[in-house]
Amino acid sequence: MKFSDDELRRKTMARDSRAIARLITRIENGHGGARSLAASLRRPAGRAHVIGVTGAPGAGKSTLVDHIALQFRARGASVAIIAVDPSSPFTGGAILGDRIRMSRAAEDPSIFIRSMATRGSLGGLAKATLECVHVLDSAGFDIILLETVGVGQAEVDVVRSADTCVVVLVPGMGDSVQIIKAGLMEIADIFVINKADREGAYALEKDLYTLLSLVELPQEAWKPQVMQTVATTGSGVEKVVEAATAHVAWLDSSPQGYARRLKVVSQTIVALASEWIARDALHGTEQFVADLARECVARSKTPIEAVEALVRRRKV
Amino acid sequence: MKFSDDELRRKTMARDSRAIARLITRIENGHGGARSLAASLRRPAGRAHVIGVTGAPGAGKSTLVDHIALQFRARGASVAIIAVDPSSPFTGGAILGDRIRMSRAAEDPSIFIRSMATRGSLGGLAKATLECVHVLDSAGFDIILLETVGVGQAEVDVVRSADTCVVVLVPGMGDSVQIIKAGLMEIADIFVINKADREGAYALEKDLYTLLSLVELPQEAWKPQVMQTVATTGSGVEKVVEAATAHVAWLDSSPQGYARRLKVVSQTIVALASEWIARDALHGTEQFVADLARECVARSKTPIEAVEALVRRRKV
Repeated sequence: MKFSDDELRRKTMARDSRAIARLITRIENGHGGARSLAASLRRPAGRAHVIGVTGAPGAGKSTLVDHIALQFRARGASVAIIAVDPSSPFTGGAILGDRIRMSRAAEDPSIFIRSMATRGSLGGLAKATLECVHVLDSAGFDIILLETVGVGQAEVDVVRSADTCVVVLVPGMGDSVQIIKAGLMEIADIFVINKADREGAYALEKDLYTLLSLVELPQEAWKPQVMQTVATTGSGVEKVVEAATAHVAWLDSSPQGYARRLKVVSQTIVALASEWIARDALHGTEQFVADLARECVARSKTPIEAVEALVRRRKV
Repeated sequence: MKFSDDELRRKTMARDSRAIARLITRIENGHGGARSLAASLRRPAGRAHVIGVTGAPGAGKSTLVDHIALQFRARGASVAIIAVDPSSPFTGGAILGDRIRMSRAAEDPSIFIRSMATRGSLGGLAKATLECVHVLDSAGFDIILLETVGVGQAEVDVVRSADTCVVVLVPGMGDSVQIIKAGLMEIADIFVINKADREGAYALEKDLYTLLSLVELPQEAWKPQVMQTVATTGSGVEKVVEAATAHVAWLDSSPQGYARRLKVVSQTIVALASEWIARDALHGTEQFVADLARECVARSKTPIEAVEALVRRRKV
């Protein structure tokens, strides 16, 4: 079934799952028309609360996100889930699709679930995700859950763009230095110790509080919360939902929350604009790049010289 | 001590550690002069073999990289190590510095060790790292070891830019789906099962071979190697060094290796050029961005509209 641009816009605003999915696919594929279509969408009302969830592979993020989604549904909120996957060069898309996701949330037709691939481009992940968030926000979802797969820089960037950042840890995953190493300390508004029925949950909680006590927070700043869950049974998930709700209230009511929103939006705008500008500027230079690459491999040019040649070329 | 640009160039080419460190710091700080200085460097001879090492936090990458470095030194090669760290918004730099690194390699004055921070910019990590690799390559190092901290997309991008990609796993880290999830399957030339004295090493090796058998490789393609190490004792590290050496020989002698070099260089050129172009285009727009951000938070503009306004503005 084909949608006209106008239908796609109208149906997306009416929160039609198939139209939303179609529009997001067009954005993922770098479809130029999709970009201006997405730009023409305007929020009908309200503003989504975007909750980023990150943590090491195997920490139980998917299960936790499912339960968070179901809890918000039970409170009457509309919910969308974006699972951010690394892409496979073999398939050119997400290797984990919605198919692998055998979740309770997936059985609820009123929860929109989508996985995002990266198309292998540097920094493309964060930008495609942000565009997708905009579409879902315009479609009027109350809650957008952004679940990432890794704990790398791109994932941290994705989660940093959310209103509320949830970092999922498991007992025995590693000591405090590992937490710092993964860059998780600075981005978390809520720390969830999942699989808290395992040994070491309280030791990890203590470590986290020690680490947090080392950070000097200004008055009225949000104090990161630490809580324990067992996502497979749903135990403790309600507290996570309450903390996230309290966090968004803080964002909306305090000067510091306002400052944080400004900072996040500024970063988002600059990141997206940078990508658009670079893509426009380098359009049609594929052959030129291939020639430069050959010269670099033959060592008649250094990569930096090649980059300078490419930058000069688009100015002509 | 201050270096003039000319001194910095001359001393870097002579592999002077302090000059190299200074130049890399300037690049990290986005110093414009450093960029053209880096571009003016030319390799005196040879070409570094860049080996990327990635894996989950706690997999023992640092220790493994130390032993690889010492092995290469024992074979008479000059070695540089770049540890790619997530940055801290609090310190504005790497939170793990060379200070935390209590390694044997750090005690060898002939091994250059450096950690790279990201300055929080989207995609900035990969680009700063590539510039740093260029400087070390120009300085004439035989081996450049690129060690990443996370297993996220940015880290995968960094490692993908290396000649040889080493992925470090540990028994019990997770099942095969987790390996696929982390996007490690497609980038590894060499899989190292570290902490192989733990239970599950052989099961993991078997899983890896099963996963690898699912990938259809063309003839003459490099067949990813799987090997076991115990990095704390150095056991098995010699085989890793031999496999990496065999891999670079394959790169240099086969059409497929040549094709891979071309692809990596093309990606590198495009990524760096994109960043330079975007940075130039958005120079001096800070106030304009701040105004746009306020409008977005006040909901009088959507983020996508703000991006379009910013893209239009730089064209004026």
